[in-house]
Amino acid sequence: VAKRLEKFKTTIFTQMSILAVKHGAINLGQGFPNFDGPDFVKEAAIQAIKDGKNQYARGYGIPQLNSAIAARFREDTGLVVDPEKEVTVTSGCTEAIAAAMLGLINPGDEVILFAPFYDSYEATLSMAGAKVKGITLRPPDFSIPLEELKAAVTNKTRAILMNTPHNPTGKMFTREELETIASLCIENDVLVFSDEVYDKLAFEMDHISIASLPGMYERTVTMNSLGKTFSLTGWKIGWAIAPPHLTWGVRQAHSYLTFATSTPAQWAAVAALKAPESYFKELKRDYNVKKETLVKGLKEVGFTVFPSSGTYFVVADHTPFGMENDVAFCEYLIEEVGVVAIPTSVFYLNPGEGKNLVRFAFCKDEETLRGAIERMKQKL
Amino acid sequence: VAKRLEKFKTTIFTQMSILAVKHGAINLGQGFPNFDGPDFVKEAAIQAIKDGKNQYARGYGIPQLNSAIAARFREDTGLVVDPEKEVTVTSGCTEAIAAAMLGLINPGDEVILFAPFYDSYEATLSMAGAKVKGITLRPPDFSIPLEELKAAVTNKTRAILMNTPHNPTGKMFTREELETIASLCIENDVLVFSDEVYDKLAFEMDHISIASLPGMYERTVTMNSLGKTFSLTGWKIGWAIAPPHLTWGVRQAHSYLTFATSTPAQWAAVAALKAPESYFKELKRDYNVKKETLVKGLKEVGFTVFPSSGTYFVVADHTPFGMENDVAFCEYLIEEVGVVAIPTSVFYLNPGEGKNLVRFAFCKDEETLRGAIERMKQKL
Ligand SMILES: CSCCC(=O)C(=O)O
Ligand SMILES: CSCCC(=O)C(=O)O
Repeated sequence: VAKRLEKFKTTIFTQMSILAVKHGAINLGQGFPNFDGPDFVKEAAIQAIKDGKNQYARGYGIPQLNSAIAARFREDTGLVVDPEKEVTVTSGCTEAIAAAMLGLINPGDEVILFAPFYDSYEATLSMAGAKVKGITLRPPDFSIPLEELKAAVTNKTRAILMNTPHNPTGKMFTREELETIASLCIENDVLVFSDEVYDKLAFEMDHISIASLPGMYERTVTMNSLGKTFSLTGWKIGWAIAPPHLTWGVRQAHSYLTFATSTPAQWAAVAALKAPESYFKELKRDYNVKKETLVKGLKEVGFTVFPSSGTYFVVADHTPFGMENDVAFCEYLIEEVGVVAIPTSVFYLNPGEGKNLVRFAFCKDEETLRGAIERMKQKL
Repeated sequence: VAKRLEKFKTTIFTQMSILAVKHGAINLGQGFPNFDGPDFVKEAAIQAIKDGKNQYARGYGIPQLNSAIAARFREDTGLVVDPEKEVTVTSGCTEAIAAAMLGLINPGDEVILFAPFYDSYEATLSMAGAKVKGITLRPPDFSIPLEELKAAVTNKTRAILMNTPHNPTGKMFTREELETIASLCIENDVLVFSDEVYDKLAFEMDHISIASLPGMYERTVTMNSLGKTFSLTGWKIGWAIAPPHLTWGVRQAHSYLTFATSTPAQWAAVAALKAPESYFKELKRDYNVKKETLVKGLKEVGFTVFPSSGTYFVVADHTPFGMENDVAFCEYLIEEVGVVAIPTSVFYLNPGEGKNLVRFAFCKDEETLRGAIERMKQKL
């Protein structure tokens, strides 16, 4: 293996999903729904396949999808972007992240990220040769330690990589926090890479795109995807929105990482993004119920559960159950209890952190959530 | 844009496909069929979508597809590989190439490639920080200058990146050439990355996978895809086959470039790879007819056409038409004649090369091929 990837293990999502199958455990690990996406989106994909929309798409997206993404971004943020010059369709948000890092970050550039983080951040920054600085978000509320962040920004800082609503904690960045990040970025000429795949799963407050703050659009790459919002995580449609000079870098990397993304899935995404507001409302309402079920259950089991305002995840402290650390706890949970959760220590730069925290996903039907809680009540 | 991508322009395929649409030109440029893939594969994708196979696949592929790929590789090469440890499903062969480079090549490693080459090779090698050495294949037969190749291998050579049947020339590496490459690699402990996406489009001789030569499997990453063989270039299903220690590097990069590939398309690929031999025979027969049509037509138009033994491309010398170079010729061809071809000079390391050669694709229905020839006869 090349040196840039030497320190990384098999991604925890693959590890845990394989263990889930092996032990027949109830999987509250990796973030995919165990229910299906909406029929109107599936029908649109089927129609595209039948209609022969099966050859290479334009590298940066079929024009109709670039337009639909721009239209939705406008509805969500008020920002008007040029679909032809500022939108790039990628193979999932994971590819958008890789393309942004490889397309815009040079070896030695300093990049700040918030821990805990989705593991691809650190790996793609390593591929890009970045020097990574971590700012740790701490329970109970995982708010940003703003003084620490200010101190971390230097004249070598090229970018801040952020994620709101935040995986794994469910924290949503507040307007005040976003404003502080924005003024730091503007003062120090720093870019922002903002992963907003959970924007439609915002329960306690409205999601705010940092690109919508004054002076920020021109220095921000906003990344999103279809998977979480439309319960179709396996379709791998993502995108990046950025001003033309940043889009250029993203597109150049994308051209040579995957060239283009599934054509029929892009046509389906066009249909999806035109969903009526009622779709998003209902999604949020349904997830709120699931969240209540899981949070209430975990508390009854004996966990300290930290409030999650967005995403379909919650983190909990497993200390009451006397295990050595999060990995040991999760192993016990899979093997002895039959439930999969995700240890969070793998999402930190410093090996010592996150050892008391585990993440549970509630993107599952009620029966599954109740079944997992039942098992934990009986065996923990 | 990051330095690693600074020297690259918008990929020629995107440029040309956009110009084709703009000028309403007949597109013999980028390699995608203008006819549809087989119904049994499309039906399998539709069924998968209907069956709710729409969530994240296992990162390195659904087990059924890994097995189907291993089974086909065995049928094609006689090699028995472990689908769980030696096969990685990627988002097209383009992603397999990127993952192999980023997962296995370190900055400063020397990599040899044959020019002309599919443009992602050079770009992904640049992302990996490799030092690239080019060996030019020259008309009329584009055979490998074996002495030049031998001289290029040093103790810093980490890998040879090859492609047979070869895009854009249609050249197929002979057993003798492959044996020379193999012995060079074994003597000098060099890896091979072999892009074999056109393996089923071999007209004059049987395709040979270099992995099947004695001592080579353990040092080869064989890459392939669904798109060309099943006329579904827009589905973006590719894969890499390699011994476990090389698969590890490919998988690690893949995990963080895209994580996983479209789940319903993977199910369809399982069905595709079980196609009866008659499917592949018919495909070859159909393409042979198309090739004859195009080659005969181009000769009548006045081109010197070089023999193509594989792929769905032919290269031709445009010198008789008096244009300054391949790019100028292709511009004239689009704007004044209404036909798209691909200039080949972009596929060389040295700016001076390939200026007399252009590539035509014959993955088009007879009417389109005849229409293009008619236009050229009238206006060239
Ligand atoms: C490839 S996993 C993507 C993110 C996610 O779903 C998770 O964190 O579980
Ligand atoms: C993304 S283009 C892939 C290769 C091909 O089809 C071509 O060379 O035209």
